[in-house]
Amino acid sequence: MAALPDRVSIVEVGPRDGLQNESTTVPTAVKVEFIAKLAAAGLRQIEVTSFVSPKAVPQLADAMDVVRQLPAAPGVTFSALVPNAKGLDRAAESGIRRIAVFTAASESFTRKNINMSIDESLAVFAPLVSAAIAEGLTVRGYVSTSFVCPYEGDIAKEKVLDVTRRLLDMGVDEVAVSDTIGAAAPTDVFDTVGFIMKHIPHERMALHFHDTFGTALANVLAGLQLGIATFDAAAGGLGGCPFAPGAAGNLATEDLVYMLHRMGIATGVDLPGLSEASQLISAALKKPLPGRVAGQRP
Amino acid sequence: MAALPDRVSIVEVGPRDGLQNESTTVPTAVKVEFIAKLAAAGLRQIEVTSFVSPKAVPQLADAMDVVRQLPAAPGVTFSALVPNAKGLDRAAESGIRRIAVFTAASESFTRKNINMSIDESLAVFAPLVSAAIAEGLTVRGYVSTSFVCPYEGDIAKEKVLDVTRRLLDMGVDEVAVSDTIGAAAPTDVFDTVGFIMKHIPHERMALHFHDTFGTALANVLAGLQLGIATFDAAAGGLGGCPFAPGAAGNLATEDLVYMLHRMGIATGVDLPGLSEASQLISAALKKPLPGRVAGQRP
Repeated sequence: MAALPDRVSIVEVGPRDGLQNESTTVPTAVKVEFIAKLAAAGLRQIEVTSFVSPKAVPQLADAMDVVRQLPAAPGVTFSALVPNAKGLDRAAESGIRRIAVFTAASESFTRKNINMSIDESLAVFAPLVSAAIAEGLTVRGYVSTSFVCPYEGDIAKEKVLDVTRRLLDMGVDEVAVSDTIGAAAPTDVFDTVGFIMKHIPHERMALHFHDTFGTALANVLAGLQLGIATFDAAAGGLGGCPFAPGAAGNLATEDLVYMLHRMGIATGVDLPGLSEASQLISAALKKPLPGRVAGQRP
Repeated sequence: MAALPDRVSIVEVGPRDGLQNESTTVPTAVKVEFIAKLAAAGLRQIEVTSFVSPKAVPQLADAMDVVRQLPAAPGVTFSALVPNAKGLDRAAESGIRRIAVFTAASESFTRKNINMSIDESLAVFAPLVSAAIAEGLTVRGYVSTSFVCPYEGDIAKEKVLDVTRRLLDMGVDEVAVSDTIGAAAPTDVFDTVGFIMKHIPHERMALHFHDTFGTALANVLAGLQLGIATFDAAAGGLGGCPFAPGAAGNLATEDLVYMLHRMGIATGVDLPGLSEASQLISAALKKPLPGRVAGQRP
């Protein structure tokens, strides 16, 4: 066990990973205000949208406008997900300076999700990442289904390491090892992440948890104990299953911040300011958000 | 860090700690069916009610009837909370074989809650515990606000040890160190519980968490790492704040079981059976329950 870190970096993914799962369309101006409030609350890395096909994710069809209307926020890095070359063209045109690409550690998931093998998806991303870096952008990578796949079950840690390494070799500067369906428990984190960290510097790794079965913060604790100091989260716990009201989505940023602060670990995030951001988006979606801290508001 | 236990005992407190915070009155027959389903799902310790004043907690005014109508359940230990000598008389009359008493580690909380100092509360309980043991009953103890008090803030670990030790000295066989307001984080567990365990055998200790701010399972992980193998939980996460719909209450038994099983730790509890129990009580309360696993049902 490593000593717990003094400080944790939070990558706020609510505007992208959260909203892409929400069916109520949020107006562009509200998204921009949401992002501005997140930045004002002290979040320093915010994934603001995805340059995915507007047909695939209508909620994020305004990606170009969102990026162009982003507030001036010194010290804040905004990023956008980019699924393919066309998305990269749009991202570059928008003026965003950081992108994220994603693949998975499960062949079945990759096949069902983007109709490619993992090798094929990496072959698509390699020139895309090179082109982005040549244009002066930086690139983050996600490895989805790093612990459990809804089709295959448990995922071998060697596979996660392999995909992580290949993303880093392309020029990705940080890989978010991701529990896409929220099924992992702390033993999975100790096993898989502990194994990967023998081969990859911990500064290159982030962990991305969903709170589907309530294990997200326990998994964060396991990650902290391994020496990981970057975690993804979404304001209010945005992004739950649209068919189960109140069902948990991403780990709620408030819950992460609450626990870390109580543990004496700095985040730079102001909880009341963050709560304002969540309340704004909760009102726009016309529903309460599933985060535990957010849910305490009478 | 101790090796994680192979097996965990769960003390199901939903019928008592959960229901006492719910305002919709549940008929006695439904409570009894709820308890029967919990037992059928494999829970081996169930706190079924409290012999508190019916005026103070109308929901549990049927304590005597609940105990008298309990199903035959070989291997299951039913218990009831007993706040005072009058409660003990009723408990003894009901035929229950195990009782629980509670005090707190915070003077302010004890004063506001039961209008006594901690010393006074222990002085009340000492003869009560002796009388119960003399009648052949066994006794569990709770130490409320063992980490954080809503009035005083952080609680000194020496105080928690002192109260725990005095309860054990009276003849209590297990003490549930309790995070009554759900404010603790894993560092609190490492600090306070780690300290107590230097002085008290771990077999005498249980941990009781609420999921108010989402930290309950992270706290369980910390407890497991310290070698604790008994945890309290409430089916579905019963017992949330009545003024905040969806707000978390007790750690949900389903969430605890999900995480433990995923970690390879046996509980003897069948998750689908437990879910049936939660659905019954959710229907009786006419509201969804806040547990994460329970909340996944579309």
